[in-house]
Amino acid sequence: MGTPSIIALDAMSGDLGAEVVVRASHASLEKYRHIELILVGNEAELRDLVTRIIGEDPRLRIVHASEVVEMGDAPAEAVRKKKDSSMRVAIDLVKSGEAHACVSAGNTGALMATAKFVLKMLPGIDRPAIIAELPSMHGSIHMLDLGANAQCTAEQLFQFAVMGSIVTADIRRIENPRVALLNIGAEDTKGNDTVREAAALLQASTLNYVGFIEGNDLFNGKADVVVTDGFSGNVALKAMEGIVGLVKHHMKRAFTRDWPSRLQALLARPVLKRIAEETDSRNYNGATLVGLNGIVIKSHGGADAYAFQHAIDTAVVEVRNQVPQQIGNLLRQEAA
Amino acid sequence: MGTPSIIALDAMSGDLGAEVVVRASHASLEKYRHIELILVGNEAELRDLVTRIIGEDPRLRIVHASEVVEMGDAPAEAVRKKKDSSMRVAIDLVKSGEAHACVSAGNTGALMATAKFVLKMLPGIDRPAIIAELPSMHGSIHMLDLGANAQCTAEQLFQFAVMGSIVTADIRRIENPRVALLNIGAEDTKGNDTVREAAALLQASTLNYVGFIEGNDLFNGKADVVVTDGFSGNVALKAMEGIVGLVKHHMKRAFTRDWPSRLQALLARPVLKRIAEETDSRNYNGATLVGLNGIVIKSHGGADAYAFQHAIDTAVVEVRNQVPQQIGNLLRQEAA
Repeated sequence: MGTPSIIALDAMSGDLGAEVVVRASHASLEKYRHIELILVGNEAELRDLVTRIIGEDPRLRIVHASEVVEMGDAPAEAVRKKKDSSMRVAIDLVKSGEAHACVSAGNTGALMATAKFVLKMLPGIDRPAIIAELPSMHGSIHMLDLGANAQCTAEQLFQFAVMGSIVTADIRRIENPRVALLNIGAEDTKGNDTVREAAALLQASTLNYVGFIEGNDLFNGKADVVVTDGFSGNVALKAMEGIVGLVKHHMKRAFTRDWPSRLQALLARPVLKRIAEETDSRNYNGATLVGLNGIVIKSHGGADAYAFQHAIDTAVVEVRNQVPQQIGNLLRQEAA
Repeated sequence: MGTPSIIALDAMSGDLGAEVVVRASHASLEKYRHIELILVGNEAELRDLVTRIIGEDPRLRIVHASEVVEMGDAPAEAVRKKKDSSMRVAIDLVKSGEAHACVSAGNTGALMATAKFVLKMLPGIDRPAIIAELPSMHGSIHMLDLGANAQCTAEQLFQFAVMGSIVTADIRRIENPRVALLNIGAEDTKGNDTVREAAALLQASTLNYVGFIEGNDLFNGKADVVVTDGFSGNVALKAMEGIVGLVKHHMKRAFTRDWPSRLQALLARPVLKRIAEETDSRNYNGATLVGLNGIVIKSHGGADAYAFQHAIDTAVVEVRNQVPQQIGNLLRQEAA
């Protein structure tokens, strides 16, 4: 591991501002020896934050960008009109080869459109998809698309499966990950036409396709990669976020409703703390926009420094594994 | 409340057999004075169970049915070939007016197809939808379609909204329930064509339409009725079930991993028990097939007696409120 991984960080687009990104950079510089970071954004503001939080580090530099893509900006507008945004400049650094990957907590639609425009798609892939690692009872699963494509064809679902298979094999270091299609029943006749056509394509492929999976089976180890369209994927992901919030709300209320309950909470604190850690979604921050000629990692907009650092971790792993090149190779193999 | 509600129970189609249904019947007969139950299925088996579990009760009778719809039966086959199934006979009792509603824990597709064939749709409704009550931080929400229609048009989503609004108003006793469309973003431009067209239809209606809602906002009180297609709805529902299982798995593991943890679990037992009760999905068993000329309640296939009894509760409320008639009235009003 002689050559460092160089990661460009869009420091301006997250909900919590640049300080979060600078603090995450600090932690990442301490964690990895072979890393170089490029903070992209308002130079004066970033300089101040770096001086205060990190000090001098030859592995960190700042690249100025005069604009910021807002959460409400339309994707096409962001591409056309904000050519000096921190998001755009970070992606440009990947295009020019000055960075091996970039991380942004900005507007998902704008990030996708800009990345597609600047980096272009891999041959054989129509549109980028969003893939992320989710916790399961036996380690984790990867799921895509989590919201990039609100309508998908069977061919796109097939392309997602190819990309998901590569990413999962790399990140989790497993051979031939088991690929499943999310559906509303396990039988062949269930679901809509698109998902049944995608199943036929997957059955005829070299991928390790294991069939349909239902939402309640996502986390019990039946598959390593779960493929779905961006509408259902995003709905499922956010519904899970919602229900975890609800369960935590019930727990909090139950443990604070009267003095005996509070005492029990105090006595059980070490265990409750461990549960909070194990169900902490920040450990799963950092989704990848796959299908592009380059590595683009999307952090949650509201990520704090701890969560943003996890998105940087994802970038580091993908750089080491040269994920886009590998996807390109497998696609050529499937097409042959 | 002089006239009793008469509920037909398909006693044979659930995963756990007839005993569960007989035990649930026993509990319901004790809970409600003005109820009559008809157990439908194998007469000898049911007679035995009733003698053993309930004894004599003039409010309970048995109607024989010689066949059972299996979980693997294709819906069309169930309609055509199993005319003396417990499911079919229970629905026939609703059609003939001998029962005011029926409850079945059987094959969802077969239940829908049979109910549609026997009872017919309300004028103005194309297809039945599955609606259920889900817990939220401020009481509950109703969501539909939870899996009856894997592909939907904007017009169908609109019809679901009308039906959902009526059911929610009745069951939760709220006027003008707030209706939201499930989407992958809150902005008007988000999602696919179908959901955007449905939004336009809802905006022009007399319903209390409050806009798009994302999965993570389902449970924090922003809407009373959430409308989506059966694919996304089913995926969201089951993904939530999956993640609740995962959280409980983490809790259990954390509280049993060593002796100090086990001691803490023991000390916190009253609170843990309350949390388990509050997050018990059995309290939300009993989804309604809306849009039909009659009341059909779908219980979870794996429901135990406690859960099945909750499905009977749902039937009782809908009979009292004459839900199908009310939906018909509102549809006529919207069409006028």
